[in-house]
Amino acid sequence: MAHFGTAVEYGLHCLLWLARSNTLLASSRDLAELQGVPVPFMAKIFPLLEKAGIVIAQQGIEGGYRLARPAGDITVLEVVDAIEGPKPLFNCSEIRGRCALFGGSPPSWSGRGVCGIHATMMRAESKMREELARTTIQQLAMGAASKAPKAFDGEVQQWFATRVELRRQARAKGIRRGRKTSG
Amino acid sequence: MAHFGTAVEYGLHCLLWLARSNTLLASSRDLAELQGVPVPFMAKIFPLLEKAGIVIAQQGIEGGYRLARPAGDITVLEVVDAIEGPKPLFNCSEIRGRCALFGGSPPSWSGRGVCGIHATMMRAESKMREELARTTIQQLAMGAASKAPKAFDGEVQQWFATRVELRRQARAKGIRRGRKTSG
Repeated sequence: MAHFGTAVEYGLHCLLWLARSNTLLASSRDLAELQGVPVPFMAKIFPLLEKAGIVIAQQGIEGGYRLARPAGDITVLEVVDAIEGPKPLFNCSEIRGRCALFGGSPPSWSGRGVCGIHATMMRAESKMREELARTTIQQLAMGAASKAPKAFDGEVQQWFATRVELRRQARAKGIRRGRKTSG
Repeated sequence: MAHFGTAVEYGLHCLLWLARSNTLLASSRDLAELQGVPVPFMAKIFPLLEKAGIVIAQQGIEGGYRLARPAGDITVLEVVDAIEGPKPLFNCSEIRGRCALFGGSPPSWSGRGVCGIHATMMRAESKMREELARTTIQQLAMGAASKAPKAFDGEVQQWFATRVELRRQARAKGIRRGRKTSG
């Protein structure tokens, strides 16, 4: 299994869409359906991004999520940490102290400092995290946008607008039906 | 769950013992029992290290494993790869092509080049691997040995020698018993 799961992949892809439009307010359902990924799964990811101050939610039929900060200020590392939580590359179980020669009472020297194996893993993890902190959502969004034809982002905006309009119409119908039933 | 499991931790700790003595031939059972880690689990790790050319096995009652190469030529990365096998930091499921606007037929531009998210994860993974490739088993073994009192490595050698001697005696007893039974 990969270290970073599909939640990270789905979450990052959603944020790229929010980064590609300053005006877009998108529900996690619409973002999931745009990308062909599971809606309930995505509905669990967005509260994590909101809690981490990466997105803001606006309630209502035209509501949805938008980035809480400029996309250039949001790093891949922040998104990974928000979604995965603390997830070390390596867990040290301090087996140094379990040596049979210590008979269950490890001498103080045996646990002095960080275990060299653990220290190596932590250095490797730092290098990995440094790299993830170097890339922002804006850089990724610009890279993705640069591959698409000029009209494409407008078509995507239209797709979202149509979804909102359909919901508005469905609600209006519901209200009219409700009035007839009660009248 | 951490990316690198306990098999990596146990395997590395075993190799440090082999690196601390040029003459030691140790069974995976003795190495496991010295360190208070599960014997059957360790017995599965050593064939992987052998297959990767990191250790060599010598058969017989005094047999066991030793490093196949100088400890300074064996990197932490090699050990990790031998034990974990290919285990990427991130799996790209190419959700770029699943966009609802493509209606199941993604245009060629949508999959052009590596997805920027995947590329970022691969850069992070490279940095992590570079760091693991920079550290050798010898460096780790020297670091561990430097914390122990001078006499300690000798005591460990003695512990291994006693185990071999006990096995030799048990076998001799078994042979004598066998002779009596057959005579």
